[in-house]
Amino acid sequence: MTTGVRRRMGVEERRQQLIGVALDLFSQRSPDDVSIDEIAAAAGISRPLVYHYFPGKLSLYEAALKRASEDLAGRFVEPQEGPLGTRLLRVMRRFFDFVDEHGPGFSALMRGGPAVGSTATNALIDSVRQAAYVQILSHLNVENPPARLELVIRSWISLAESTALIWLDGRRIPRAELEVQLVHDFAALAAVSAAHDEEMGALLRGMLKEEPADGPFSDLVARLISLAS
Amino acid sequence: MTTGVRRRMGVEERRQQLIGVALDLFSQRSPDDVSIDEIAAAAGISRPLVYHYFPGKLSLYEAALKRASEDLAGRFVEPQEGPLGTRLLRVMRRFFDFVDEHGPGFSALMRGGPAVGSTATNALIDSVRQAAYVQILSHLNVENPPARLELVIRSWISLAESTALIWLDGRRIPRAELEVQLVHDFAALAAVSAAHDEEMGALLRGMLKEEPADGPFSDLVARLISLAS
Repeated sequence: MTTGVRRRMGVEERRQQLIGVALDLFSQRSPDDVSIDEIAAAAGISRPLVYHYFPGKLSLYEAALKRASEDLAGRFVEPQEGPLGTRLLRVMRRFFDFVDEHGPGFSALMRGGPAVGSTATNALIDSVRQAAYVQILSHLNVENPPARLELVIRSWISLAESTALIWLDGRRIPRAELEVQLVHDFAALAAVSAAHDEEMGALLRGMLKEEPADGPFSDLVARLISLAS
Repeated sequence: MTTGVRRRMGVEERRQQLIGVALDLFSQRSPDDVSIDEIAAAAGISRPLVYHYFPGKLSLYEAALKRASEDLAGRFVEPQEGPLGTRLLRVMRRFFDFVDEHGPGFSALMRGGPAVGSTATNALIDSVRQAAYVQILSHLNVENPPARLELVIRSWISLAESTALIWLDGRRIPRAELEVQLVHDFAALAAVSAAHDEEMGALLRGMLKEEPADGPFSDLVARLISLAS
């Protein structure tokens, strides 16, 4: 039992190792293109032993996705201090770090496909979206959001997802530009909604009144003024 | 052979009838909740006869989705005359007509799920997105779009999808407001991109210079100025 140089891993430790190995491979190629054989080889164990810990590729995929989802949701957490635009910019940087680290796996998941469109994976995607939504609401200090605010936040979250997916497809625009732009997009979508609704107008004025002259929101206003002139 | 009152349908005619019946049921309840028995009953034929025309529910679902996709893509087609904002507003009205008509089927499809996440359905969704993208490019008179313009258009398309999905979930905001707002969102996202990039700035100025004072784009500017004051 103790003669080998490598000590034996416990069940949970081995599962965690396999999840890490799988996530690492999914960050290089689409999960559909990664075989259990490769995962076994990368983990230094036999293929049957992988099946001892996970009954099939889907269950390993779902466990990997669960870890990645928790990782991403954790990156949304930001101290509630300082200007809102600056907080959102820091979250956008961590979001793009995540997207950058998990490129092919993120694309495959969000675009759907044979291995990735199960009810369980959709529930995990929704849980991450909900975590983002709850974080933003808490930073805006709004407990009972009106329907129009919920729409702005949730539709902006989908805009952030699609922006990241389009960025991954060729990386033709520097990510730092897109991180700032998404902060500006949030302000722009909120402004359009505020232009249609008085309650949203009051919310937007409240959001912007604490923003400093050198923060991302003021930066947007300055850029738009210079564009218009 | 000719004694019955109802004449017999040809194969293609019967297939088209079943697709129409299925789309009608999918517009009332999620495709996952509609059984082949119900489709057979609504079409006035036996369950085994349905299977004679479609080998399974998925193939009938895919055929129904194909017809709905062509229908939607057809609604994007708009004459290339008059102000851009007004054209886009007319398309948004037809888009919301479609979403309104196909509510539960549209939601189930876009949210993914057991019956709807196949490779074929994803390809159909992508073909509709591509049709929208190509239409917008042609109205902007741009043949070789820079990466930033492609990003604005494609990410706005995903914003329109998520806005429609959120609207369907309770219909808490009048759709006419969202139709105008999505036109404004397009201008706002283009303006943010233009604020970051000179080429996009030139494109935006070209887009806006023909817009009339009573069109949707000028309406947005007036609303924003009134909001800021």
